[in-house]
Amino acid sequence: MKVNNKQYRTVWIEGNDVCMIEQNLLPFEFHIYHAKTYKDTCGAIKTMIVRGAGALGTTAGYAMAQASMEAPENKYSEFISQAKSEIESARPTAQNLFYAVERVYNAACISKEKAVAEAKKVADEDALASRKIGEYGNTLIKDGFNILTHCNAGWLAFVDYGTALSPIYTAHHTGKKIFVYVDETRPRSQGARLTAWELKNENVPHAIIPDNAGAFLMSQGKVNMIITGADRIARNGDTANKIGTLEKAIVAKHFRIPFYVAAPTSTIDLNCPMGKDIPIEHRSEEEVLYQTGLDKNGNLVEILVCSPGSNAINPAFDVTPAEFITGIITEKGIISASEKDITSLITDVTQNNK
Amino acid sequence: MKVNNKQYRTVWIEGNDVCMIEQNLLPFEFHIYHAKTYKDTCGAIKTMIVRGAGALGTTAGYAMAQASMEAPENKYSEFISQAKSEIESARPTAQNLFYAVERVYNAACISKEKAVAEAKKVADEDALASRKIGEYGNTLIKDGFNILTHCNAGWLAFVDYGTALSPIYTAHHTGKKIFVYVDETRPRSQGARLTAWELKNENVPHAIIPDNAGAFLMSQGKVNMIITGADRIARNGDTANKIGTLEKAIVAKHFRIPFYVAAPTSTIDLNCPMGKDIPIEHRSEEEVLYQTGLDKNGNLVEILVCSPGSNAINPAFDVTPAEFITGIITEKGIISASEKDITSLITDVTQNNK
Repeated sequence: MKVNNKQYRTVWIEGNDVCMIEQNLLPFEFHIYHAKTYKDTCGAIKTMIVRGAGALGTTAGYAMAQASMEAPENKYSEFISQAKSEIESARPTAQNLFYAVERVYNAACISKEKAVAEAKKVADEDALASRKIGEYGNTLIKDGFNILTHCNAGWLAFVDYGTALSPIYTAHHTGKKIFVYVDETRPRSQGARLTAWELKNENVPHAIIPDNAGAFLMSQGKVNMIITGADRIARNGDTANKIGTLEKAIVAKHFRIPFYVAAPTSTIDLNCPMGKDIPIEHRSEEEVLYQTGLDKNGNLVEILVCSPGSNAINPAFDVTPAEFITGIITEKGIISASEKDITSLITDVTQNNK
Repeated sequence: MKVNNKQYRTVWIEGNDVCMIEQNLLPFEFHIYHAKTYKDTCGAIKTMIVRGAGALGTTAGYAMAQASMEAPENKYSEFISQAKSEIESARPTAQNLFYAVERVYNAACISKEKAVAEAKKVADEDALASRKIGEYGNTLIKDGFNILTHCNAGWLAFVDYGTALSPIYTAHHTGKKIFVYVDETRPRSQGARLTAWELKNENVPHAIIPDNAGAFLMSQGKVNMIITGADRIARNGDTANKIGTLEKAIVAKHFRIPFYVAAPTSTIDLNCPMGKDIPIEHRSEEEVLYQTGLDKNGNLVEILVCSPGSNAINPAFDVTPAEFITGIITEKGIISASEKDITSLITDVTQNNK
């Protein structure tokens, strides 16, 4: 997608460097971070310089490729195996991370050249999948729709286009009049910061809403559909996504509003039978207690926004049971959130790749 | 309640001044605001120096008493009648405001002395009602309970004790081991700022959670009950309260978690048949886009926390239908959220007052 008329992906490789848009600084500053080593790249994943399921996958794949380039010849296997564990432990929930690392590691076992090529292939597939998700998802969007989305599953969360936002971009570019309610998505405010920034750059009409306002708008008949991304989809269709997604899904079902998850097949984890098997990351309480933003002089500052001395709890994801999901929009088509549909889709994908 | 070992109410009258804890500055600064005229007091209501259903009622009653003291003798009736309209238009949702203004206005029609006495009586009744709500509500709380609350319905929201927090204080003071999940309550963060501050002052174990985390905690079996306050209760039990309450109530019902509303009978509006008749205040988008807090030097600063140039929508309340409310904890006892229970309770109260 374009930023100031220049084409960008969220993450890419230049020689030995993994380069990425520094998402911690958005929307206030646009800066490219260069991770010189695979350890730098792991650090960027942990500190959320890069975030979003697909972007995490591609970045982790590139980190694995970096590791293969850094590995000393006499300890190559040991080095890349240790690096694999390290990269996989950077963040626990997003399936795409494990998917990409596995693929690039298998290529790295042959050669570092294969590893780099495979990492680039993962990135390209991710971008292509996102575009296809946009095309399929667009078939669900009617002219005049008000769509609610949670967190950021836009192009910043993937290599390009995005998942939840991809159908929205496609609908907008094909001339449909749509309006997007952007959940702020506390505590890290990826909606208010990243999704709003993306939509403004693409001139898609939207408004930021407090996470608390979703049910009110739904009760007023102002929401036609909800689309979110996914960090991991279990075999039975249960879906882990940003904290607060479960709440929207339960409320949407009450008001009979369609609730769609948009994700590439690389987000599906067939080894995970159901939602309760998905590990949920708990992050630092500081993310709740403090917030950063621009002061009146335009400086980026961090302020304490809670009562001093109180603690906070900060689970980063929740799991939405399949029963609340109207459908899953993938690059292969729209399926129901059921074990039958999911396994047959993945089997098809695997066979096509052979 | 005590602040730094000194007994305070949230609002009181001293001669012609209405004095109140400046809640906009809490928890970072503790300051008493003196409203010299009824217009000052209206301003304090509008700018949320004082907020919370009960505290708004008492403050509005005091404003009405101030107006009667300010009224020129030759235009007394005209002056107090005009002041009544002005005070009533300060904020639209909280029923207690209309209730208190009506009572004090009727007294003011007799004399300014009667008006001041009536305003003080409203404040005393509010404090007493809050204490009784604590006693009744405490009977629902078992030792070891984890209780979730939304916004601030503590002593800051009433003259003393509070509504949703009053049973929590009573349970804590009678030795029950309880833990409180405090919804941050964006956009104004009354949970993270006021409820957390209150609970810390009273040494009640608690943690601030993002509004998004409620469903996750409920899905994990970590919430035994929810108690919120109310801004207005319609005759059929539908209840307006801080934006986000509806969301918690729907989710709680899904997980079969008891959801209680705590409010004095003065919050009930028999003239309002059902929830859709309750006016919902929409506040400035600035409350979503900007946030205040303490910077690292301890200065209170305001920062932009959203993507520059995007708009926000900021409905301040939502309406929870009676079907989601397990019970209403009032100063007269715990009743169901039904027209039958509500009307018979109010009829009893009216008869007792005669």
